Amino acid sequence: MAEKRSINMTHWPRVTVWNEYRHEKTDEKVGQIYPDGMHQAIARHLRGEGFAVRTATLDEPEHGLTAEVLSQTDVLTWWGHMAHDQVRDEIVDRVYQRVLDGMGLMALHSGHSSKIFRRLMGTSCDLKWREIGEKERVWVVEPGHPIADGLGEYFEIPRAEMYGERFDIPAPDTLVFVSWFQGGEVFRSGCCYQRGKGRVFYFRPGHESYPIYYQPEVLRVIANAVRWAAPVPGPEIIFGEHPTPLEAMR
Amino acid sequence: MAEKRSINMTHWPRVTVWNEYRHEKTDEKVGQIYPDGMHQAIARHLRGEGFAVRTATLDEPEHGLTAEVLSQTDVLTWWGHMAHDQVRDEIVDRVYQRVLDGMGLMALHSGHSSKIFRRLMGTSCDLKWREIGEKERVWVVEPGHPIADGLGEYFEIPRAEMYGERFDIPAPDTLVFVSWFQGGEVFRSGCCYQRGKGRVFYFRPGHESYPIYYQPEVLRVIANAVRWAAPVPGPEIIFGEHPTPLEAMR
Amino acid sequence: MAEKRSINMTHWPRVTVWNEYRHEKTDEKVGQIYPDGMHQAIARHLRGEGFAVRTATLDEPEHGLTAEVLSQTDVLTWWGHMAHDQVRDEIVDRVYQRVLDGMGLMALHSGHSSKIFRRLMGTSCDLKWREIGEKERVWVVEPGHPIADGLGEYFEIPRAEMYGERFDIPAPDTLVFVSWFQGGEVFRSGCCYQRGKGRVFYFRPGHESYPIYYQPEVLRVIANAVRWAAPVPGPEIIFGEHPTPLEAMR
Amino acid sequence: MAEKRSINMTHWPRVTVWNEYRHEKTDEKVGQIYPDGMHQAIARHLRGEGFAVRTATLDEPEHGLTAEVLSQTDVLTWWGHMAHDQVRDEIVDRVYQRVLDGMGLMALHSGHSSKIFRRLMGTSCDLKWREIGEKERVWVVEPGHPIADGLGEYFEIPRAEMYGERFDIPAPDTLVFVSWFQGGEVFRSGCCYQRGKGRVFYFRPGHESYPIYYQPEVLRVIANAVRWAAPVPGPEIIFGEHPTPLEAMR
Repeated sequence: MAEKRSINMTHWPRVTVWNEYRHEKTDEKVGQIYPDGMHQAIARHLRGEGFAVRTATLDEPEHGLTAEVLSQTDVLTWWGHMAHDQVRDEIVDRVYQRVLDGMGLMALHSGHSSKIFRRLMGTSCDLKWREIGEKERVWVVEPGHPIADGLGEYFEIPRAEMYGERFDIPAPDTLVFVSWFQGGEVFRSGCCYQRGKGRVFYFRPGHESYPIYYQPEVLRVIANAVRWAAPVPGPEIIFGEHPTPLEAMR
Repeated sequence: MAEKRSINMTHWPRVTVWNEYRHEKTDEKVGQIYPDGMHQAIARHLRGEGFAVRTATLDEPEHGLTAEVLSQTDVLTWWGHMAHDQVRDEIVDRVYQRVLDGMGLMALHSGHSSKIFRRLMGTSCDLKWREIGEKERVWVVEPGHPIADGLGEYFEIPRAEMYGERFDIPAPDTLVFVSWFQGGEVFRSGCCYQRGKGRVFYFRPGHESYPIYYQPEVLRVIANAVRWAAPVPGPEIIFGEHPTPLEAMR
Repeated sequence: MAEKRSINMTHWPRVTVWNEYRHEKTDEKVGQIYPDGMHQAIARHLRGEGFAVRTATLDEPEHGLTAEVLSQTDVLTWWGHMAHDQVRDEIVDRVYQRVLDGMGLMALHSGHSSKIFRRLMGTSCDLKWREIGEKERVWVVEPGHPIADGLGEYFEIPRAEMYGERFDIPAPDTLVFVSWFQGGEVFRSGCCYQRGKGRVFYFRPGHESYPIYYQPEVLRVIANAVRWAAPVPGPEIIFGEHPTPLEAMR
Repeated sequence: MAEKRSINMTHWPRVTVWNEYRHEKTDEKVGQIYPDGMHQAIARHLRGEGFAVRTATLDEPEHGLTAEVLSQTDVLTWWGHMAHDQVRDEIVDRVYQRVLDGMGLMALHSGHSSKIFRRLMGTSCDLKWREIGEKERVWVVEPGHPIADGLGEYFEIPRAEMYGERFDIPAPDTLVFVSWFQGGEVFRSGCCYQRGKGRVFYFRPGHESYPIYYQPEVLRVIANAVRWAAPVPGPEIIFGEHPTPLEAMR
């Protein structure tokens, strides 16, 4: 097919890469893998794609997610794990409202248990897990989807934490990836949702103990998903009383 | 086709019909239409279908939804409007957990704005509305679905409050009904969801000011949806660490 | 939850179990596993569930699927493999029309490549395969669905032919099962669809060389899916010109 | 939100606008509305969007859809009505295969009954219709979808042929538009599907007797849908035997 060749010179979309950023500072082994935090590994790649990228972390004021920052964010990526409960509810409310208004949200790996993802899903988002560094194969089940752009039929993560079904999520609007794990489990690893005017993507790979956010296929998926989740200027929605006179319809 | 003739002698499923039950007591006109409350009109019909039916209302202790009542409820129907905010959060939590564990939930009409429905959806559930008593036609768009059992291609509600799109819900797993309104709007009126192990149905018709819960087609849909939403004893799910040894898989 | 105890004395639904029935007669090893054909193994179990069951095979006149037989069939199960091309097009047309009119259809295992299933899907239904008798784990990903009734979180098939993604199907309306294979593949093994007024279920397990249609979990799923796919007497649909006068709507 | 400003200088995607092109030549009234055919009205707009556009019509050799033309087509739009049966099956096969391989397809208005659309859907695609020139309102039900980009909450078509439910299609992967008709019907007017690697969009508006393909909102939707349906270079899929040795997975 004709290649769509284009250089992104518009610095669009504007991405905020959010990270809890605790494991990297408290666990020496994690700190060696991600000396600047996982957010920097992700942000670096997204900048290379031509997006306008900033980062934000839990311990910044307002978790780095001020109203101003959010109003200038088209897509927010979210990594959290050990401190989900420390994310303040009013910040969650703010992010939630922005998603309904059109901002894209990407929950990464253990972000499945974040307040914001669970709120958007309406379920527990619980799952099975096991951490023995086993092999994962991420299979593309919807090869025509833009998030699968540039991938092979599958890619492997040599050592991963296992996440297994039952993953307590609403059935995704589109299921893009299903993971196979050496130990006998499967997992819906790439899940697309629409919530309000915003698009939500859950992407499983990534764990603080393995250098997964340096792996080209993983970074490629994240960049693809940023493009997919970027908002479009659709209709302004007006809720509430709607006083069209019947006469107008005759 | 061969008719499936069977008499329900099992008093199954067990239904709890929940009603805010305020309009009927404070608005004379509403009280004339539903002297015992809308819940009784609904409950009467469901008893006639052979289900085991109880009712519960906002002003009962624990809103009538004690842990014991919920543990004996297979399907809960929910009507609320003017007092959504007075439903206590711990009761909402309790209902929510039961849905994830398998209890069916049916949100009726203005129940779209109830705490429990919004929590299960993960969106605002806002919509347009207009109350001039216009005509509504409820069209069946999925005629093979069990909730459409026994209906014609559409049924009419002579005088209804209008609800119009955009209805801010996640796209339903199955869309069964779409309403047409005389004044120029459309609405996704019958929406099926799976949340955890529980099934959720939103059904638009019904308003305190009109005798809609006496209309045979409306009652038929509610009874059909009770059967559809009744839980099945599926697998017991175990979340958390899952220590299958790799050796077992070879 | 309260058990729904009921004895099926209505001999409903009426099931026709269709089998190509060639491997069993030409391959000695297969004949030893299924001396009467796979259809009899399946039919025996479904009769035990109280359904009215008949069988039909490729080499009968009209493949055993006369207009009369189909008019008396609520759910048709389909197993074919080596002789898909020998199924006559007018019989496929007849089955197709019955599905659109409400008959349930279950495609089993290699039935993914049957003319009728591909026609209802609108895609190639191709997949990967490997036959080395490896282990399969069938995971339940939608535990609240009636087709998962009575199962555990997964069941294993000790020796199976592998089917792997990409499975070229439309995304299922509901995905109930995902299989894990020892050799590194995953597969969407239980897929629900609505086509016209009929319900369609694809179920992967089952291969002529292994005694899979004697395995209790597999038979349980088939019986559950028969109940799920049985038609409901929904609205009679009228297509074509629809001359409602505008005046009627005012 | 930040506007994504970009000028399409890549002449991508490559669109082929196909039209039966019979009504315009045989019906004087239609010919006055579309003197060059509906395809030219559509093509003109798409060229203005920066796409590389060609047209093709039924009466050209191979209906204008040679293997070469299709191999250079990223998205094909299809309008047909009175001569669906004259489209040759081998051309339908060729288009079908291209869709599964990734080409986008847009079926317009009466294209719902075309061979290619019905084949991709797997259903009859029948509907109700009435031609009295009544008013249609096309409501956006999924305002965050790229196909709704730039629209208001709804747009009106002053005089349209009515199409009404039941529309016998598989439930769309995404439902973007629902139409309201003055005479009392509703219709799923904008329906997204994935079939193989190709994306399929059905868009209802457009009828030979009304100047609908000059209406800005209609042209905007068609251009949006072209972008949405354009293929992405996803994984090359290999079907068939897949001989991964088990050893590799340990």
